Amino acid sequence: MSVVIAVDAMGGDSAPHSVVEGVRAAVDSADLTVLLVGDEAVLQPLVVEHPRIAVRHAPRVVPQDADPAELVRGDEGTSIVVAARAVKAGEAQALVSAGHSGATLAAAALIIGRAPGISRPGLAAVLPGATRPTVLLDAGANMDTTAQQLHQFAHLGTAFAEHLLHIDAPTSGLLAIGEEPGKGDARMKEAHALLAADAGLHYRGSVEGRDALTSLVDVIVTDGFAGNVLLKTCEGTAREAFRRVRAEATGLRAQLGGALMRPALRRVRDTLDPDTYGGGHLLGTNAVVIVVHGSARPHGIAQACRYAAEGVECDLVGAISARVS
Amino acid sequence: MSVVIAVDAMGGDSAPHSVVEGVRAAVDSADLTVLLVGDEAVLQPLVVEHPRIAVRHAPRVVPQDADPAELVRGDEGTSIVVAARAVKAGEAQALVSAGHSGATLAAAALIIGRAPGISRPGLAAVLPGATRPTVLLDAGANMDTTAQQLHQFAHLGTAFAEHLLHIDAPTSGLLAIGEEPGKGDARMKEAHALLAADAGLHYRGSVEGRDALTSLVDVIVTDGFAGNVLLKTCEGTAREAFRRVRAEATGLRAQLGGALMRPALRRVRDTLDPDTYGGGHLLGTNAVVIVVHGSARPHGIAQACRYAAEGVECDLVGAISARVS
Repeated sequence: MSVVIAVDAMGGDSAPHSVVEGVRAAVDSADLTVLLVGDEAVLQPLVVEHPRIAVRHAPRVVPQDADPAELVRGDEGTSIVVAARAVKAGEAQALVSAGHSGATLAAAALIIGRAPGISRPGLAAVLPGATRPTVLLDAGANMDTTAQQLHQFAHLGTAFAEHLLHIDAPTSGLLAIGEEPGKGDARMKEAHALLAADAGLHYRGSVEGRDALTSLVDVIVTDGFAGNVLLKTCEGTAREAFRRVRAEATGLRAQLGGALMRPALRRVRDTLDPDTYGGGHLLGTNAVVIVVHGSARPHGIAQACRYAAEGVECDLVGAISARVS
Repeated sequence: MSVVIAVDAMGGDSAPHSVVEGVRAAVDSADLTVLLVGDEAVLQPLVVEHPRIAVRHAPRVVPQDADPAELVRGDEGTSIVVAARAVKAGEAQALVSAGHSGATLAAAALIIGRAPGISRPGLAAVLPGATRPTVLLDAGANMDTTAQQLHQFAHLGTAFAEHLLHIDAPTSGLLAIGEEPGKGDARMKEAHALLAADAGLHYRGSVEGRDALTSLVDVIVTDGFAGNVLLKTCEGTAREAFRRVRAEATGLRAQLGGALMRPALRRVRDTLDPDTYGGGHLLGTNAVVIVVHGSARPHGIAQACRYAAEGVECDLVGAISARVS
């Protein structure tokens, strides 16, 4: 039986159209089935009849200014809550949403729940490293994080790198400023000591923001604030660098050069595309949960569905539980 | 009388040669004099006789593994301590060093001292924004920062943007994750409230890592950890994007394209060069202090000396004191 992915159809900047298009691409290219959750009257005409897409009605959409926890506790009718409940009930094995990320995280934590032994679920982003992908954890789910939680994040990220990115014996590093591991506040020093003493990790010490894309380590461990700053800065800098190249290539000579280089430039831009890995993977919950960029194109939605299916098939949740227990 | 800049000649990856070369370029291109501090036996032959470069002997160099505060308190003979003492004694009006950055910050704080009313000096980095430079503060001097200190950083950065970058009525933003200013921990909320209530600032609310290079605001306020992560991630991502373009441009077609585009690509790379603004400007001390990248080339050293002279001429220290008092 193929994996069932619950997808919030109403989340994201160009929902539901880009979500439906992405879901179609996913079911046509991988062995998975989608439970598409949202306004039936809107979705049914878009889906028509597809043997591997079922529509589940949810009357409401999460407003962008919603308080996430309130919303999940108080509301039964939003698409994200209905989708999370379907996962909790076992009708689907994974959750994908491009909607309000705070609401998705809250629905995952409050409805799907933490896996046994997990202190805090962490959001893993995949950075396009020079020679292979790099896991960044936490990419923005938690604002204050203890040394013990950072230590656990290293295990979550290592399990993810091993099982979903197929990296053998993933190395990890603690995000710091300056290279000396002794630098930093008490929490960083404690986290460093915990990581260094753990024989179950291939810990390499401190890494800096400049190492984000150099494949120096496979898993970069940090708290949600610094991790989100790093992730957004990476994305913004890459986008701005390419914008400046386009803006500077104005004369005839440079335009001709640009035309000739276009395939090479496009390949580089594609390697830096945040849609490649489908978004943020919430690790440490009782099911596979992927938080997709609000601005994701259909390609990003499809990637998220494929990664979600693979996460279910390789039993990522079980692998994580085995690591932390 | 021209401004005197005390330069630590022994700091930086290729010191003293690149420092001496940079200092020569600076004194030849701007109205300033340099007090070059380091091993006389090494420096004198490099400088020979130059009417605007005086050599001051310091027998020792800061080792890279030194504990900054210990070093400044316990040692009289290192080049950074001798240089900072020359500033304190009024023989020079500014300090420039490409050496151990922690030692430079410690020498500035402990020997040159904080300006009146300053709680913590902050390190300002200048980011190459899309339409004009952007001040990032704190870029790594302070690990734990209160809401009140973040508020003061906004004033330090605003004074710097106004007086040294010649930006009229600089706008500021608080680095956050997500756009809503309410998001974040108690310290962030308090800082946001202080900034929003201050009529002396042009505060625009939250900014994200993705806005680092888009000139959305003129001053980005944050603590030293997140600021350093942002700065290093910017530098690393830009470097890696250009490396990938070079690596991908392999075929004949792409190589021809690359040759034609070279001037445009070089202009973009130059706009992203961290040497452009001479390094990190320590704001809130009793004299102008610039912390140069350890890897700075002579161009970066020269820029730092020119910015230091300009900072003295426009009385940046006085302008900052006037703002915070």
